[in-house]
Amino acid sequence: MRTTPGKGTLRVLGVDPGLTRCGVGVVDVSRDRSATLVHVGVIRSDANAPIEQRLATIAAGLRGIVDAHSPQVIAVERVFAQHNRESVIGTAQASGIALLVAGERGLRAATHTPTEVKAAITGYGAADKRQVQAMVARVLRLDALPQPADAADALALALCHAWRSAGPSATAQSLTPAQQAWADAERSAKR
Amino acid sequence: MRTTPGKGTLRVLGVDPGLTRCGVGVVDVSRDRSATLVHVGVIRSDANAPIEQRLATIAAGLRGIVDAHSPQVIAVERVFAQHNRESVIGTAQASGIALLVAGERGLRAATHTPTEVKAAITGYGAADKRQVQAMVARVLRLDALPQPADAADALALALCHAWRSAGPSATAQSLTPAQQAWADAERSAKR
Repeated sequence: MRTTPGKGTLRVLGVDPGLTRCGVGVVDVSRDRSATLVHVGVIRSDANAPIEQRLATIAAGLRGIVDAHSPQVIAVERVFAQHNRESVIGTAQASGIALLVAGERGLRAATHTPTEVKAAITGYGAADKRQVQAMVARVLRLDALPQPADAADALALALCHAWRSAGPSATAQSLTPAQQAWADAERSAKR
Repeated sequence: MRTTPGKGTLRVLGVDPGLTRCGVGVVDVSRDRSATLVHVGVIRSDANAPIEQRLATIAAGLRGIVDAHSPQVIAVERVFAQHNRESVIGTAQASGIALLVAGERGLRAATHTPTEVKAAITGYGAADKRQVQAMVARVLRLDALPQPADAADALALALCHAWRSAGPSATAQSLTPAQQAWADAERSAKR
């Protein structure tokens, strides 16, 4: 089903890049920082398939999501060489595909580090994965944590991008009701 | 100009992946291992452009070469995480784009390590870049070394792929004239 963002909202596609599981999450974020889930899922590619087919599967999946949901920007997790896992090259290749899809569709793209995402979502750059997932579920008013973790990470990236783009959050003196709810949730999550 | 490979020859597009300079070389290799230059060049992307546009430039350049020369296979240098240069992530992303182009066009793709390329071209896995370039120029009967180095590396990759695909070379007892010329060149280059 095609969806379109409401007026004044920013629609972001977050991508947690990976060859076997590429997390994708689309959110709408309003000017008051409140957010709504549009789509969440995982693009999988067969670990036994040739790499060129795996990357084509990921590209096709991402283009399908862009076509269905028309995000204004694609936010991709930044990959570091010092993440010296065996999979870092595959992760970098998948991130390149996500950025390429943005470039070819004329969409803006941005990369954010895991620390930036954690800080944006929980207020704490060293938060653990579960804290981030719990906050994502709370902000998007989900009944359960998004599964699998790659999907939750993609939503966190999308939220991170929208909030960072909007500039620093308002001070406590001038919180809107939505911002106040957010600040409460943030405090509650830190306990 | 569109070109098509002759009968019984394997046409290989070699790609030395990189964001700023992506080397590309197309060669035709006959069953007797003799080789002919079809195309050599470099796809450049502006270091000041956003990454999504740089990757789109590289993808468009590679698709243009595939359209013009109809290679049967794309051979890409394998990128390693332990190449802990600052640019390794960009190099991995560019390699992913080259593999994607193969997958989307239904072409076979292969990756080869720098050591495999050196061994295939010079018979010596620790050969220096200049030895590899000199042998590439000799095999392809070029008057000068291909420039820049990225272009020469792309040709070396393409030759490496064709020769490795053809299986082990014939024994000295059964060398064709072309193979004999190659063996002579190989010996000469090692001096």
